[in-house]
Amino acid sequence: MKKGLLIVLSGPSGAGKGTVYNAVINMLPELKKSISVTTRLPRPDEIDGVHYYFRTVEEYVAMKERGEFLETAEVYKNFYGTPQAPVFEMLEKGEDVFFEIDVEGAKQIKAKYPECVSIFIIPPSFEVLEQRLRGRGTEDENSLLTRIGSARGELAQYKNFDYIVFNDDVHSATQNVVNIIEAERCDILRNERKILNMLVN
Amino acid sequence: MKKGLLIVLSGPSGAGKGTVYNAVINMLPELKKSISVTTRLPRPDEIDGVHYYFRTVEEYVAMKERGEFLETAEVYKNFYGTPQAPVFEMLEKGEDVFFEIDVEGAKQIKAKYPECVSIFIIPPSFEVLEQRLRGRGTEDENSLLTRIGSARGELAQYKNFDYIVFNDDVHSATQNVVNIIEAERCDILRNERKILNMLVN
Repeated sequence: MKKGLLIVLSGPSGAGKGTVYNAVINMLPELKKSISVTTRLPRPDEIDGVHYYFRTVEEYVAMKERGEFLETAEVYKNFYGTPQAPVFEMLEKGEDVFFEIDVEGAKQIKAKYPECVSIFIIPPSFEVLEQRLRGRGTEDENSLLTRIGSARGELAQYKNFDYIVFNDDVHSATQNVVNIIEAERCDILRNERKILNMLVN
Repeated sequence: MKKGLLIVLSGPSGAGKGTVYNAVINMLPELKKSISVTTRLPRPDEIDGVHYYFRTVEEYVAMKERGEFLETAEVYKNFYGTPQAPVFEMLEKGEDVFFEIDVEGAKQIKAKYPECVSIFIIPPSFEVLEQRLRGRGTEDENSLLTRIGSARGELAQYKNFDYIVFNDDVHSATQNVVNIIEAERCDILRNERKILNMLVN
């Protein structure tokens, strides 16, 4: 059986990756999401195993030490990580798994699973990124400059990625991500089993 | 400036590559074709430099000895070849060049220009290929069996190709080829110049 694709969508904050991610899922509803493990407490409406796997810090650290994460991060004193086993199970079943993740997480996944398809999404220019972040009105001047600086730093690590999508508008950026996924499904080596089956029958 | 893509569409006879090629050109009219050199005589309506470059055998052999072809073939005592210089000029200008060519020609191009994007198009099964060839009604039983045998031999060389498209129906096969071209345009290394420009400005 053909193994599924692991597709990683990443990019700096303000690139619009969340919007594009959801639009791609709408166009390709067969794509599977992964459920993260976290040490933060569940909110009232959150269900263990649906929104997150909620674990204690001790459990999390033990998982990490056993190398059970594809990637892991600490955000505001809480840990978040992508457990490897359920993702690999989906891939083995031939299902394509699709992540939206920050650049550091994408880097960890690429290091651990180089066959993943990693897509970097970026606004057409840093001026546009600045306008978008200002448009949100949620950042003071300092944190805005920090975000733009880190976006530059992230783009400088472009060699961790297979593809780049310039997000001029959501529709065409979404279409480009869909094109990349569809094209990767046509990759000759990913279809080797099917080809060999044709040849021996 | 970003260099153009050289895209090669190939596959066995009966795979429908001609139909798909024309449909892709309709969807992506910016794709450039190349003009072949041939030693056969022009037909009354054919113009030198438009339909073919018509050359004598001596001129052709001299070009071949100077290594001026991307690929070359002999068909019914005539030579046909793709001259390299005009193709490389278009690529340097950032134009994407799109070829439809037989499997042997595709192999020669991949050897000479490994950065090319090579796509193998094949019917979903050899039974379907046989039905299609029979449907044409232009082949006797022997030449039909030869064609199917050579299609198998060509598929066995799948490692010369980057992508495979199973031509179940023309519409989706065309869409897949378009997806592959659009995805390759998002390849991170092909966009390196643009990324570096963003980083230094």
